[in-house]
Amino acid sequence: MKSINVGLLGIGTVGGGTFTVLKRNQEEIARRVGCNIIIQMVADKDIEKAHHIVGSQTIVTANAHEIVANPDIEIVIELIGGQTIAKELILQAINNGKHVVTANKALLANHGSEIFSAAQQKGVIVAFEAAVAGGIPIIKALREGLTANRIEWIAGIINGTSNYILSEMREKGLAFSTALTSAQRLGYAEADPTYDIEGIDAAHKITIMAAIAFGIPVRFEKAYIEGISQLNNEDIRNAEELGYRIKLLGITKRVEKGIELRVHPTLIPIKRLIANVEGVMNAIVVKGDAVGPTLYYGAGAGAEPTASSVIADLVDVARQLTVDPKHRVPYLAFPPDSLSDTPIVSMEDVQTAYYLRLQVIDKPGVLADITRILADADISISAMIQKEHAEEEDRVNIIMLTHTTQEKNINRAIDKIEKLPSMTDKVVRIRLEELNK
Amino acid sequence: MKSINVGLLGIGTVGGGTFTVLKRNQEEIARRVGCNIIIQMVADKDIEKAHHIVGSQTIVTANAHEIVANPDIEIVIELIGGQTIAKELILQAINNGKHVVTANKALLANHGSEIFSAAQQKGVIVAFEAAVAGGIPIIKALREGLTANRIEWIAGIINGTSNYILSEMREKGLAFSTALTSAQRLGYAEADPTYDIEGIDAAHKITIMAAIAFGIPVRFEKAYIEGISQLNNEDIRNAEELGYRIKLLGITKRVEKGIELRVHPTLIPIKRLIANVEGVMNAIVVKGDAVGPTLYYGAGAGAEPTASSVIADLVDVARQLTVDPKHRVPYLAFPPDSLSDTPIVSMEDVQTAYYLRLQVIDKPGVLADITRILADADISISAMIQKEHAEEEDRVNIIMLTHTTQEKNINRAIDKIEKLPSMTDKVVRIRLEELNK
Repeated sequence: MKSINVGLLGIGTVGGGTFTVLKRNQEEIARRVGCNIIIQMVADKDIEKAHHIVGSQTIVTANAHEIVANPDIEIVIELIGGQTIAKELILQAINNGKHVVTANKALLANHGSEIFSAAQQKGVIVAFEAAVAGGIPIIKALREGLTANRIEWIAGIINGTSNYILSEMREKGLAFSTALTSAQRLGYAEADPTYDIEGIDAAHKITIMAAIAFGIPVRFEKAYIEGISQLNNEDIRNAEELGYRIKLLGITKRVEKGIELRVHPTLIPIKRLIANVEGVMNAIVVKGDAVGPTLYYGAGAGAEPTASSVIADLVDVARQLTVDPKHRVPYLAFPPDSLSDTPIVSMEDVQTAYYLRLQVIDKPGVLADITRILADADISISAMIQKEHAEEEDRVNIIMLTHTTQEKNINRAIDKIEKLPSMTDKVVRIRLEELNK
Repeated sequence: MKSINVGLLGIGTVGGGTFTVLKRNQEEIARRVGCNIIIQMVADKDIEKAHHIVGSQTIVTANAHEIVANPDIEIVIELIGGQTIAKELILQAINNGKHVVTANKALLANHGSEIFSAAQQKGVIVAFEAAVAGGIPIIKALREGLTANRIEWIAGIINGTSNYILSEMREKGLAFSTALTSAQRLGYAEADPTYDIEGIDAAHKITIMAAIAFGIPVRFEKAYIEGISQLNNEDIRNAEELGYRIKLLGITKRVEKGIELRVHPTLIPIKRLIANVEGVMNAIVVKGDAVGPTLYYGAGAGAEPTASSVIADLVDVARQLTVDPKHRVPYLAFPPDSLSDTPIVSMEDVQTAYYLRLQVIDKPGVLADITRILADADISISAMIQKEHAEEEDRVNIIMLTHTTQEKNINRAIDKIEKLPSMTDKVVRIRLEELNK
């Protein structure tokens, strides 16, 4: 199997996550791409930390220039951040004919045009899914998934720190400064939180999305930016009372006079899905003329979610480099010769929780019989309510939620329960999924 | 500019939408792709209707075989549906070396392996974004956006008809049969609604997603399927009382014994975003080991939303065929030489609605002064509440929502309002977006 050599610049949070995920899912990724993606070299000022993360099979250097100059490296991942050294290294890598994957939104929002133009000239790829909304594949959706559409507008919760602060202010009635301190304690906000709370980070991201949506150059300097530090708890409550929730939105919109590009606290109707995105999560609504509104939701930051996007870009580049263009992306994501024959589990063996409704004659001992049968089948109950029957007064409905069990256990228990003389009808059984793991 | 000739099989709802959107957004799409995508031929049994839709510049035939045999056609779009003629035509198109775009989920869920294997042999693309969840680019997200991840599970509301029925049952307390009749009257359900309400359509879609997520062949025959026709309104209410909402979910999950593949009514906690997807909308949660949960939301059916996915596939194929592989997808979605210089609108000219909070001394005439200033600036008010000040009893907070106006109007009005002698503090102004247009 062919290998593709990658050099990683900066092994902090996202760099470490990228290394870890790539290693953990090596086999699955190789099955998808048909080649091995190998981080051959890592550059970081903190050599000791880098060695500790990558082990002995990866070359570690304090000098990032060694990586961008190394002819064995085909793809450079830039995760240093900032707009000086990062820019220099990216331009050198491009100049040396290497493809670049970066999460550097500040750099792209300010100097994207220069970087893309250099890449275009050298015929290399610059990929940046991780620069906007962490693990959400929004760049791909905008650039490839929605190409049929004239994009009308984009509105996004694209800064997890400020969304966390707003959620805390609303849910717990905290003042801005208290919520900020809590965010800092949990590692959601940095010691100097300016970029996040003053809307600058969100403006970088909406600037990049505006360029892709409308086919315009990146123009961060034209963005209107207002953060959340002046927001008052009273206004959050008033908004709620009027049916609205306040979110820090990045908004870009096609209007008659041109393109709107702005970041500011915004009231949105509570009934919109995006108004219900809480905590550090991100979500972006894209309105296309054909598709209507679509929404993309997920973790907007963090080591592994951001690594998910960095690696998706690596796979994209690797597929371009190694595969016959017509088979760049396999029909079923994995090439035909690497499909697996994992069995489909029979429904009997499926594990889930259950909602049960039992219609019984209301007399002593009924509940004891039922709970005994469930206990014997190893099914435990997480909630129960009992309700009078509307029409026949000696009958009641017993409603139970169970903890997770096997479908065959619940079926066997239901069979037994239905044979009890006090049961007046079949047991209603609906499956329950928490969708939280 | 190069042209790519496309043949369209079937010009019903989605076929008509595809033709319309491709025509309406011709220029924008050509800017993105760098070539013209032209529907040269259309096949439909109803020749008269087809002529009416496509006009005189497109060849119309009743014989679909003419299209799949035509050497000028590079891409065939199959929108006939069903598993007999559609399969025959797709296989012939593949055999003649043509790329295929299809929305036919039933066909792919049942005969995908045969079709993909034929395409692999002939070196052509078979694209099917429109087969799952209409306009939501979920196939692309799974196949390309989340490649870094070991997918753990997928849970989706992937049948709009049954989701509409469940929403109606819950919101209006309707019986299943009444809600179904309402769905049929609105065109959301067909005369024979079996495929939708019995979970078969959802099972086709989850089968396709399972194959992509886990790298297994399509195995519709192994899916467990239970629909919503037996659901009782009482259980929907009970679930609600316990903090859950009932949705028809397609679920696929990687477990120790293999892969779970099932469709059934499911209780999900109301606080999950997906529990709040109502009406005909679709949403899919994908849980990856690195990225965590991500959610994709949008219209799951309808002429233009589905056309959005069909055309995204056309663009994908066209980019593969015409562009240097390394520049297949332009950095900013549009190639550098076709970026536009549309201006960024200054904040003064932005139009939006506003939330205003005015802190005033409570005396006669204050409100009249304020509303006069707003009226003079052409700003109309959509809601107002007045609240006692918590500490100082002669003061009140006036909270107003305005209709849409220009930022410069509101700024000018606020300047005037702040000069009123009864004002005790600055006006709080937060922008409001309905996000519904």
